[in-house]
Amino acid sequence: MHTPEYYRKLGINIVTESEVVEVVSKENLVRYRPNKSDENLLKTIKYDYLVIATGGSPFIPPVEGTGLKGVFKVRTIEDGAKIKDWSKHSKKAVIVGAGAIGLELSYGLKQIGMEVSVTEMLPQILPRSLDPDMALKVQEYLEGLNVHITLNKALTKILGNDVVEEVVVGDTNIDADLVILSTGVRPSVELAKQAGCNIGDMGVVVNERMLTSVPNIYSVGDCVEVHDGITGQKTLSPFGTTAVRQGKVVAKNLTGKNAAFRPVLNSVVSKIGELEVGAVGLTEVSARMNGIDVVIGKSQALTRARYYPGCKPIDTKLICGMDGTILGCQIIAKETVAERVDTMALAIAKEVKCDEITEMEFSYAPPVSMVVDPVVLAAENALKKLNNS
Amino acid sequence: MHTPEYYRKLGINIVTESEVVEVVSKENLVRYRPNKSDENLLKTIKYDYLVIATGGSPFIPPVEGTGLKGVFKVRTIEDGAKIKDWSKHSKKAVIVGAGAIGLELSYGLKQIGMEVSVTEMLPQILPRSLDPDMALKVQEYLEGLNVHITLNKALTKILGNDVVEEVVVGDTNIDADLVILSTGVRPSVELAKQAGCNIGDMGVVVNERMLTSVPNIYSVGDCVEVHDGITGQKTLSPFGTTAVRQGKVVAKNLTGKNAAFRPVLNSVVSKIGELEVGAVGLTEVSARMNGIDVVIGKSQALTRARYYPGCKPIDTKLICGMDGTILGCQIIAKETVAERVDTMALAIAKEVKCDEITEMEFSYAPPVSMVVDPVVLAAENALKKLNNS
Repeated sequence: MHTPEYYRKLGINIVTESEVVEVVSKENLVRYRPNKSDENLLKTIKYDYLVIATGGSPFIPPVEGTGLKGVFKVRTIEDGAKIKDWSKHSKKAVIVGAGAIGLELSYGLKQIGMEVSVTEMLPQILPRSLDPDMALKVQEYLEGLNVHITLNKALTKILGNDVVEEVVVGDTNIDADLVILSTGVRPSVELAKQAGCNIGDMGVVVNERMLTSVPNIYSVGDCVEVHDGITGQKTLSPFGTTAVRQGKVVAKNLTGKNAAFRPVLNSVVSKIGELEVGAVGLTEVSARMNGIDVVIGKSQALTRARYYPGCKPIDTKLICGMDGTILGCQIIAKETVAERVDTMALAIAKEVKCDEITEMEFSYAPPVSMVVDPVVLAAENALKKLNNS
Repeated sequence: MHTPEYYRKLGINIVTESEVVEVVSKENLVRYRPNKSDENLLKTIKYDYLVIATGGSPFIPPVEGTGLKGVFKVRTIEDGAKIKDWSKHSKKAVIVGAGAIGLELSYGLKQIGMEVSVTEMLPQILPRSLDPDMALKVQEYLEGLNVHITLNKALTKILGNDVVEEVVVGDTNIDADLVILSTGVRPSVELAKQAGCNIGDMGVVVNERMLTSVPNIYSVGDCVEVHDGITGQKTLSPFGTTAVRQGKVVAKNLTGKNAAFRPVLNSVVSKIGELEVGAVGLTEVSARMNGIDVVIGKSQALTRARYYPGCKPIDTKLICGMDGTILGCQIIAKETVAERVDTMALAIAKEVKCDEITEMEFSYAPPVSMVVDPVVLAAENALKKLNNS
């Protein structure tokens, strides 16, 4: 976001291009290897408090061929530049993993004229955020653009002689001269582990003040595990907004205030071609996996008054507890999805029920909204089922 | 929204083009004059329950010249068609009243090449929804399009010989060959009054079930007065969404359920040219008029990541109580304002405080949002002032 100089002007000492090799928590010091220096030269820096923000790294499936030329991970700006360069001389792209990043890329590569295939080991695209019925709408949109989607097949291997030639998923071979592994990100916990911090099933363990199990060592970002706001279970929240909020919590706690990071609802939004796809809270699938009985409310509506030019279809799905409490929401449309998801994130956080949603005020003007909001229609749909059950 | 035939197919007897001349509440009947029939022929219809939804009518300032040709009110589709026809042969439009409707019209008339002046008796445009500082941003936008805006001057008279020639505001004469009176709407309470219903300072008095003071007579829409959700005072809420929600409350109450209409926050949004202008809850001005101490939080941010094509400036103003509770919000941008106002409407209804907003989850992807939401920045700004006070 900002240059090192920006921080230095604020009086913050930024040490870049240096690798931390050891945290000595008993001595409150960090040993690091400055860039371009002797391998064996280590410098130390003392701390009162240490914040470990080592982030995550792309998961590379443990199969043959991921090291071939033309096979890319996708995490940094540099990764993006490499993919862009390679794509100039390629025709057939295979994207492994149908999460948001993979699907966003599929549209981009299609736009520059490539043949594009997306493969996913699970039976649906966007399995972390959407239920199958909503995912199908995104799938149909992409298939309408001639993006080929293969479900239910894991990456078996990648074939080629120095340069990639084929991707094998299950027992199917797909020609490829560009392969992108968008198979998720794993927390980078090695440094925290070396420092003696407890590591959970998911990531670095922190309390709500973002303090690890080691005194004076905090951790934030993609490397930590957090709690799900609905199930209470441990989960990951590898999102920029989560990292920013955690960073603020630590900053407050280090400067004498007492701040807590709350369990997450994992609000997400992605722009896949023209579609905005957003979700927050529990999916229907995850509710059932957690033994939570739910009722579903759906609506198919418009983003603006039906007679107003430019109005676009909008699909809304609400996941509600048996007392009507909203537990999750998924929205797909070509505009204004992120902001609608944000409203439902607040509704879930405040344990709002469907009948409150139907009584809620929504601002209205024909060029920008419907007189009855799509989420009200979905809540009414859920209420009808609840009243009948 | 729908034709009479649409309702008839649903088994609803719609009597159109007929004027109700009397409600005889003791006999549970309504007398009406069918259209195109003898002046003295009256029909009657019996009721178990009566719903008076007489709406509002445009306020016409009691000055000379409002009956001249070329002077229009603006309420119905027919009004719109008449203005459109007249504008084809006009060059200089004066719009009296700088509310949302007047300003939306000013842009439209400017777009078809007219000289356009807007006059307002109060010292700012959009006085009902926005504070002066936010209203100024909209004013500057319109002035940038060469819409002339005159504040602090009431309509004195309209001059002309059969056809309008000049509008006089205060002591200023403005040439005009088209005048639009967008000077607000007044509740049409005459029928309810004749029926014996109590009429308050604002409109027809109803309880939270939308029942008037007369047994079995309900009233909804622009003709009733409601309660402000923050000050508790009587107010008007002449908006389509309010009418829809009130209609649903009455329908439930007439069919054996027990529904209540809640006090209003008056969420509004308007599209004025490219600008979306939205507001909900108390303005700073109305807070001070009601003796409520408030702190203001403001932000100037972007609707998307700053490096993403198409990102647009967004101005946010929060009005907060001295304990940080959000009481009002005003937002101006070229996109996504309505949905952001809706989020804040829920926040106000749930008595959310600024610090909760800063901890709240907002969905993030660079093409559709900032990593820190503009309303979070405004809440942080308010908190800084609260912590210093």
